Amino acid sequence: MTSKLLRGPSVPVFQAGEIGRRAAVRQRAGLATIGMHFGQPSCGAPAAAIAAAHRALDTDVLGYWESEALRERLARHYQDSYHVQVDPKRILLTAGASAALVACFAAMFRAGDRIALTRPGYPAYRNTLRALGIEAVEIPCGPEYHYRLTADMVAKLDPAPAGLILASPANPTGAMLDHDQLQAVIAVCHARGILLLSDEIYHGITFGTRAVSALEIDPDAVVVNSFSKLYRMPGWRLGWLVVPESWAAELSSYLINMFLTPSTVAQYAALAAMDVPDDLQHYVELYGRNRTRLVAGLASLGVANVQPPDGAFYLYADISHITQDSLQFCRRAVDEIGVALAPGVDFDVRDGQHTVRFSFAVSETEVEQALALLAEWLPGYRDR
Amino acid sequence: MTSKLLRGPSVPVFQAGEIGRRAAVRQRAGLATIGMHFGQPSCGAPAAAIAAAHRALDTDVLGYWESEALRERLARHYQDSYHVQVDPKRILLTAGASAALVACFAAMFRAGDRIALTRPGYPAYRNTLRALGIEAVEIPCGPEYHYRLTADMVAKLDPAPAGLILASPANPTGAMLDHDQLQAVIAVCHARGILLLSDEIYHGITFGTRAVSALEIDPDAVVVNSFSKLYRMPGWRLGWLVVPESWAAELSSYLINMFLTPSTVAQYAALAAMDVPDDLQHYVELYGRNRTRLVAGLASLGVANVQPPDGAFYLYADISHITQDSLQFCRRAVDEIGVALAPGVDFDVRDGQHTVRFSFAVSETEVEQALALLAEWLPGYRDR
Repeated sequence: MTSKLLRGPSVPVFQAGEIGRRAAVRQRAGLATIGMHFGQPSCGAPAAAIAAAHRALDTDVLGYWESEALRERLARHYQDSYHVQVDPKRILLTAGASAALVACFAAMFRAGDRIALTRPGYPAYRNTLRALGIEAVEIPCGPEYHYRLTADMVAKLDPAPAGLILASPANPTGAMLDHDQLQAVIAVCHARGILLLSDEIYHGITFGTRAVSALEIDPDAVVVNSFSKLYRMPGWRLGWLVVPESWAAELSSYLINMFLTPSTVAQYAALAAMDVPDDLQHYVELYGRNRTRLVAGLASLGVANVQPPDGAFYLYADISHITQDSLQFCRRAVDEIGVALAPGVDFDVRDGQHTVRFSFAVSETEVEQALALLAEWLPGYRDR
Repeated sequence: MTSKLLRGPSVPVFQAGEIGRRAAVRQRAGLATIGMHFGQPSCGAPAAAIAAAHRALDTDVLGYWESEALRERLARHYQDSYHVQVDPKRILLTAGASAALVACFAAMFRAGDRIALTRPGYPAYRNTLRALGIEAVEIPCGPEYHYRLTADMVAKLDPAPAGLILASPANPTGAMLDHDQLQAVIAVCHARGILLLSDEIYHGITFGTRAVSALEIDPDAVVVNSFSKLYRMPGWRLGWLVVPESWAAELSSYLINMFLTPSTVAQYAALAAMDVPDDLQHYVELYGRNRTRLVAGLASLGVANVQPPDGAFYLYADISHITQDSLQFCRRAVDEIGVALAPGVDFDVRDGQHTVRFSFAVSETEVEQALALLAEWLPGYRDR
């Protein structure tokens, strides 16, 4: 047998995955664990979505399928929520935002292209680009910028990258651009020939003003979104793209070749999930209360440099006065007190060693418990 | 607004998709249609899988998840069906074989690499490689070779490609390599440093001897498989990879970054589907009867040059005495008599204009009806 070597680029793991495995070990041992490490709602899909899934299981053979009704419903969502007209033809259903990003990266860019993204940011952008041979160019967007990308940062990129990925609200910070800020970024992208990919996966989960879609500013924007966050369907694997009409046929061909069609049962469930706004809002309000409590609670524990997130369900905390090794900190937090957090190094390989991300899409009780456990544990914490 | 252009390579559509859209138009008009165009069972998942999915909907929040139990069950399947020991660590769950292929291509190869595959063959291999900037090298495996790849063909590739994709049983021909043939191909791959990706998605659906897994010959083989065919769960989007142990961590990192985890409800259902062998076998026997009837029926219609498939649920028919334009033929077959077939041009861009693929994972009644409709229609058929 010849020795075999992976020829592709090496791609880092999510360190949050290790925290998750440690949390699972605890849970199997019957120890209480509060899961604030993964970026997913802990509460399950709306009852209407579950009911629709039950019906689909009983009435459909669940073959390869794309729901025209869901594309039309999503088009109506853009009209209702953003007052933007989107032809259903421009909406492509995908196996989560993940598959949407993979197909977009492959279709929109070429190996060797340079794509800009923010640091801190969602690690899968960087790592998936790397897996595809595309170079990620990180734009520092730390606390000194309130974690917000500015048009000026994009204007100063030299040379101009082929593309820019922008998430607003952002992971892991919850930072959001307002209409004028987003418009300014889009204007620079247009002027410099930079293709913008607007990740709007946290839209609908905001704690003041609503999130602005790139489609409100540029009718030909490329938007990625998903049913994993607002609709609370992470394990169902369903997302969508909005693309310029002239791209739709070709991107659809990328998707069908690379992924065939997305989960059929998820498409039925998602259609139902879109029609229960009160159910969705109920959980957004819960996240809002968790956000307020967590910001205040952490401040009382001496974690004061927290920027309250504009949206998403994350709080990105600078804990440089406590640790210089966020991974070790998160390992010990889950092992010693059962509080599972995501280490900053996932989101920021340069400065993330003294930050952690709290995902507060959990119950209010869990937020209280996590704060109580941290209050007891933090004063004695020292890096080893 | 600047004009926007897709920078990636152009990727062809599946022509079978157009046939599917024409079939859907007929169905919406209330016209009888026999769907033999897509590569999927028409009969739905085993009842045990549906029941497990119902239970999962009622008891699990369906977050991001990988089923350890399913990986262990798959490992046992290799023991039971092939007498091969596979550590569950080497089994990676994926969002269908599609996502498995995308991750493997990205991890195992580099842009510019040359990967060999058979012609005719599954179009998504070629097109997904193209989407990723990898060059597909087609090996002619026409009827003169009984559609079977040989070790000699691989030995003669000059220069040696970086990889080879082999499906046995194959799509669209159902051709299968026996143990010695597969062993010879693997030996040449080893000798020439060619990475073999063994697509075993049609294993379990054979009409004589069972299919041989590459793992029986090379314990470090890379195998892709899925729950879409034997387990009749195409729209559920669940597949798996078996990879060398030294690759598992890195490939897992590719998968989590590019796709997160596969459908949670599908994982529960798949675990149940693996434990109802009689249910699975019932449909394999049905396909076997359909195969016999279709081969005989087509022969009586003058379509005599048919190689009875060893496995899968496809019959790839040379109809060069009827048409030189398989796409037009398939369009008219669905429009005029409601028999939906896949045109050969999907599988063979050079010689596929006079071939069609019948997918016979349909009911026996549908096979009879299709043959009766063709018997009336074919004699008057002329290319326009």
